[in-house]
Amino acid sequence: MSEIRSLALACREAVPTIAALDSAAKATLLRDMATALEARCDDVLAANARDMAAAAAKGVQGAMLDRLRLDAARVAGIAAALREVAELPDPVGQVTRRETRPNGLTVERVRIPLGVIAMIYEARPNVTADAAALCLKAGNAVILRGGSEAIHSNTAIATALHEALHAHGLPAATVTLVEDLRRDTMVELLQLTDIVDLAIPRGGEGLIRFVAEHARVPVIKHYKGVCHLYVDRAADLDLALDLLIDGKTSRPGVCNALETLLVHRDVAADFLPRAAQALRERGVEWRGDAASRALVPDMHAASEDDYAAEFLDLILAVRVVDDLDEAIAHIRRYGSDHTEVIATRDEAAAQRFVQAVRSAVVMVNASSRFSDGGELGLGAEIGISTTRLHAYGPMGAESLTVERFVVHGEGQVRHPRT
Amino acid sequence: MSEIRSLALACREAVPTIAALDSAAKATLLRDMATALEARCDDVLAANARDMAAAAAKGVQGAMLDRLRLDAARVAGIAAALREVAELPDPVGQVTRRETRPNGLTVERVRIPLGVIAMIYEARPNVTADAAALCLKAGNAVILRGGSEAIHSNTAIATALHEALHAHGLPAATVTLVEDLRRDTMVELLQLTDIVDLAIPRGGEGLIRFVAEHARVPVIKHYKGVCHLYVDRAADLDLALDLLIDGKTSRPGVCNALETLLVHRDVAADFLPRAAQALRERGVEWRGDAASRALVPDMHAASEDDYAAEFLDLILAVRVVDDLDEAIAHIRRYGSDHTEVIATRDEAAAQRFVQAVRSAVVMVNASSRFSDGGELGLGAEIGISTTRLHAYGPMGAESLTVERFVVHGEGQVRHPRT
Repeated sequence: MSEIRSLALACREAVPTIAALDSAAKATLLRDMATALEARCDDVLAANARDMAAAAAKGVQGAMLDRLRLDAARVAGIAAALREVAELPDPVGQVTRRETRPNGLTVERVRIPLGVIAMIYEARPNVTADAAALCLKAGNAVILRGGSEAIHSNTAIATALHEALHAHGLPAATVTLVEDLRRDTMVELLQLTDIVDLAIPRGGEGLIRFVAEHARVPVIKHYKGVCHLYVDRAADLDLALDLLIDGKTSRPGVCNALETLLVHRDVAADFLPRAAQALRERGVEWRGDAASRALVPDMHAASEDDYAAEFLDLILAVRVVDDLDEAIAHIRRYGSDHTEVIATRDEAAAQRFVQAVRSAVVMVNASSRFSDGGELGLGAEIGISTTRLHAYGPMGAESLTVERFVVHGEGQVRHPRT
Repeated sequence: MSEIRSLALACREAVPTIAALDSAAKATLLRDMATALEARCDDVLAANARDMAAAAAKGVQGAMLDRLRLDAARVAGIAAALREVAELPDPVGQVTRRETRPNGLTVERVRIPLGVIAMIYEARPNVTADAAALCLKAGNAVILRGGSEAIHSNTAIATALHEALHAHGLPAATVTLVEDLRRDTMVELLQLTDIVDLAIPRGGEGLIRFVAEHARVPVIKHYKGVCHLYVDRAADLDLALDLLIDGKTSRPGVCNALETLLVHRDVAADFLPRAAQALRERGVEWRGDAASRALVPDMHAASEDDYAAEFLDLILAVRVVDDLDEAIAHIRRYGSDHTEVIATRDEAAAQRFVQAVRSAVVMVNASSRFSDGGELGLGAEIGISTTRLHAYGPMGAESLTVERFVVHGEGQVRHPRT
């Protein structure tokens, strides 16, 4: 048996134990993990310093290097996040529906853990603790396969988590960190269909495509967020400008930032010059169609690619549309199923937009930046799904469970003996 | 562009139209499909006669040939099933949760259709109508890829469905029947990740494994049902015997039939000889471990393979277990995650069984034969999932939808302008 298969099997053997823990025991475990992590802060920082030195030597810099970096405050933040997950409601055992059938059978739908979840991620070492916490919260065992840049940091964090598992008499394999980071090994992990119930890749589009292409186990993923704001003819234009500024400039590098602005032609002359002025002050570059450029003359021309782009930067694609239908058609063509926003005071238009746009999150008169597990009330987020299956949009602990059937009877049979 | 890609694209283009239909329009469509099918009954039977003749010429016989066969009563049954689906509640648009966040945002979870569903199935021509009906009910477009044995029957049924689509002004591509049945074409269909949202294979284990191995789109499947009855120490033995007889003999060829009996050692001497007698009268062959055979001397010895087998026949594997834990361990080792039953009057034992057994359906004092969408209240069933993701157990129309987020605000932003 290969080493990765044997690791994964040990993880699967830990499933019944973690799945059987009650809510209080899981909460205590997560709090003890936070304490263990704080106690090992120096070790974690020393390990991180090794990763940082190796990354710097390889020429990594800027945002990439910053993602890898830990300091005492960031470690404290990871511990705080573990405690927050401890306080969340436990989805396991929730009875979502109960029905008594005509024959007297009681049919319940009850949430149970998925089983073994493989997290595939890149440079951020906090994912090691965050992902483990949410998986454990929902009664799952987890296989963590982080990036090679963060291997020492991830190992040090995992050591702290294992201390807490050990103190609770739980197998270390409940949280399994993969140390063999060869691509072939990852591919083998992603093909263990008899062991792994779900793989969740988190990172750049390259990693996610690699996982999606090679996995034989189910994968929940999102490639990118090309989020649209449609400013309707009936929009409150001040409100629309607030949504535009917040969506584009409050944190342009994240997936729920706005990338494209669609404006109804009836309000374009009023809205676009004002919006262009406000965004120009905030350093945003505009790329528009001919109609937009007629109204804002110094705008660059938008290419076809610009409308499909996730800029993750202070760049905005702009287009004037004839009506709501053209806005919807544009989003269907270029959208990424992530998050779309309509600004309108016309309830019928809002309803039509919500109905026709099939993205995971649709906002009426609210910023796209709320498309986030915490902001939408999930407490914490393990990822965002643009796969229209199982979970669609931000995923919290509940998305790491599935409903099954529990039936109680008194001896009912389908064909009574005659 | 290949022909299958172009077919699938046309189907995807039909999604917004079917997804936008309200419940009444969809119900009328399904009823009109039933009427069209009845009107075309002669054509369907003539087409089926061609399929039957071809199959007979190829040497197909027995149950396989019977599955393919249609007559006026069976066509009426298919029409009746369409009308039943018309009457079911519409899952699309259901608001499953609603919450107001502290910042005033209203966050709703709303069911929407999945999009394009590819059904891959074998000889039963009724699946053409049944699967189309459930997909349409949930607002999905559907690509039907049936078996070559049933191609004429399937085409005739699809023609009737298309008549109703046409009368409603809906594109024929909403229900797309694949006529090119080459395996390569099916593989290409299963890899259209940008078009197909879900593939559901229905048929023998060979077909299902083929689909699972070649698909790049998400697949929901079940390979087999190795269903267990555990007769606990605290069981009502008369009740247990009812469950055993119903589970094993009422329809042995289906996936929710019992395949293995586990008996607590304390009641084995009382239960096994009686059960053996009752089942012998019904033609059931027993295969047991040493302890069972000591109590029922003329029993065959069970091999390791017998415990993993889905016999689909009047054969039962039997084992005496020391306690509940050994029963659970047996099910974990040999089970197929389909359906398990405990017979007991001990509520604590029942609870422990339900908690520890991770199968899609767990029954307490009820027959495994109730593990069926209709019996569990889903109205109709498109399949049974033993994939612990999205849906687990019998799948009805609701399983052909996904919950997404709809957020209403009044201009809320994450970082107000200062």
